Amino acid sequence: MTPRLQQALASASAEIETALEAHLAIPEGPEARLLEAMRYATLGGGKRLRPFLLLESAQLFGVGRSSALRAACAIEMVHCYSLVHDDLPAMDDDDLRRGRPTVHRKFDEATAILAGDALLTRAFKLLAHSATHGDAQVRADLVLALAEASGASGMVGGQMLDLIAEKQPLDLGAITRLQRLKTGAIIAFAAEAGALLGKAPSQARHALHAYAHDLGLAFQIADDLLDVEGTEKQTGKKTNKDAARGKATFVSLLGPERARGQARLLADQACAHLDLFAEKADLLRDVARWVIERRN
Amino acid sequence: MTPRLQQALASASAEIETALEAHLAIPEGPEARLLEAMRYATLGGGKRLRPFLLLESAQLFGVGRSSALRAACAIEMVHCYSLVHDDLPAMDDDDLRRGRPTVHRKFDEATAILAGDALLTRAFKLLAHSATHGDAQVRADLVLALAEASGASGMVGGQMLDLIAEKQPLDLGAITRLQRLKTGAIIAFAAEAGALLGKAPSQARHALHAYAHDLGLAFQIADDLLDVEGTEKQTGKKTNKDAARGKATFVSLLGPERARGQARLLADQACAHLDLFAEKADLLRDVARWVIERRN
Repeated sequence: MTPRLQQALASASAEIETALEAHLAIPEGPEARLLEAMRYATLGGGKRLRPFLLLESAQLFGVGRSSALRAACAIEMVHCYSLVHDDLPAMDDDDLRRGRPTVHRKFDEATAILAGDALLTRAFKLLAHSATHGDAQVRADLVLALAEASGASGMVGGQMLDLIAEKQPLDLGAITRLQRLKTGAIIAFAAEAGALLGKAPSQARHALHAYAHDLGLAFQIADDLLDVEGTEKQTGKKTNKDAARGKATFVSLLGPERARGQARLLADQACAHLDLFAEKADLLRDVARWVIERRN
Repeated sequence: MTPRLQQALASASAEIETALEAHLAIPEGPEARLLEAMRYATLGGGKRLRPFLLLESAQLFGVGRSSALRAACAIEMVHCYSLVHDDLPAMDDDDLRRGRPTVHRKFDEATAILAGDALLTRAFKLLAHSATHGDAQVRADLVLALAEASGASGMVGGQMLDLIAEKQPLDLGAITRLQRLKTGAIIAFAAEAGALLGKAPSQARHALHAYAHDLGLAFQIADDLLDVEGTEKQTGKKTNKDAARGKATFVSLLGPERARGQARLLADQACAHLDLFAEKADLLRDVARWVIERRN
């Protein structure tokens, strides 16, 4: 990771943490437990890749920081809800996440289901509130785009494909599609949201979409490589899960060397889409390179 | 049920069914399974109370039918998602809903979790889309209000309280609060959404809120009575659940007679809040009376 990216990411992560904490204040009464689980699921960890992409894309168009931070919190809430539900016994049945017990292990299954539901709902509440943007059209567009990216034709649809993939190994085309839905759509939303907030011309939005598309795929290939080559200590979660389940991945289909080459190619392509932003997009380029080099 | 309510409810239910079906078209590819589960959870059953309230309140302000129907579908999707998640083994562990196997019984647990997530997300997508209302401010307001009614300070928060209530019996004040969150907030949204869609003055919105508040409480007391006095055949779901779990309810705390009296009082109060709409709100008054007399 370049020092400038490291610094920007650390500073953004701190901002995001503070903002998330403010948005997840614990109420009086017994339902406090729900908020505690929502906080446990979102605070104190994670790479904050999606909200960072959102903040950086917003910055390209001079979007106010408090607007961008609200949208960044919304996307992180959606990401964290998806992890909470994915980790459930009926889904991936994971005990460990970011080096800590998963939400259903720390609390219980029912609380984990509800905390996920409430985080997803809270994300839309955040976006729709007038504090996110003075123009209601922008807020409605953000809600629509996030719902499309995270629903049945996006993240949840990809998760469904992932469950099916455990029973019938997929080919490269099907895995690429699975990834595009499961992680790609939300990453694309993160990069495009800045353009929506900044009412940028569609050319800029499309460039960010293309960047995020390649970035998302590179990210997933790197993730598959880490699952094979990383250790639990490095990644903070169980490794070698896919092979143990006989699931086809980019790595099992291409082999580690070709997969690594493909990830590099995608990262280069991602950067090329940012040409129109010149040096203003340097951090986004750094992200593309970091994504394929990361060790966790 | 009055004949005019019976007719209006049947006709609205048919419209809602058709609209829901159109909004839940099955895509090509293996993720079709997800949409099949979403359709199973929403189509072919249910009282359609919430969408009916929404359509009737919209009608008070001359809102276009297609606008109102989209919002009605959104609220029914949220209601159905909550039933799917509530029925899960980690929650209420129910096998039967509307006389049919619950979603996790018919499909599997993972599919039920994802179908619920996708229905919730789809509801916000529906509301935010420009086809719902020409004014983006109205769409953003609808998203915000539905998110508030269905999230941690609304329905999901109430569900959390309900889980806690299984371990420590609540008093009447706590149960009233639980109900207000768990079912009351969404019912209030249903009644208020028409005022939002019709850009009605706040006096009208407040009257509908007060109506829905009393209606929701009456509805819950009637539900508790049915759990004690109804049969599985009548209600299409397991009965006597609360007593079996030692959960305090309006009926266990007040006794059936006083509970019935309280429900009647609330239904009368609910009707009184509708005075300013004169005879235009007659069907909403019929709903209040039906809610306490129903046998399923």
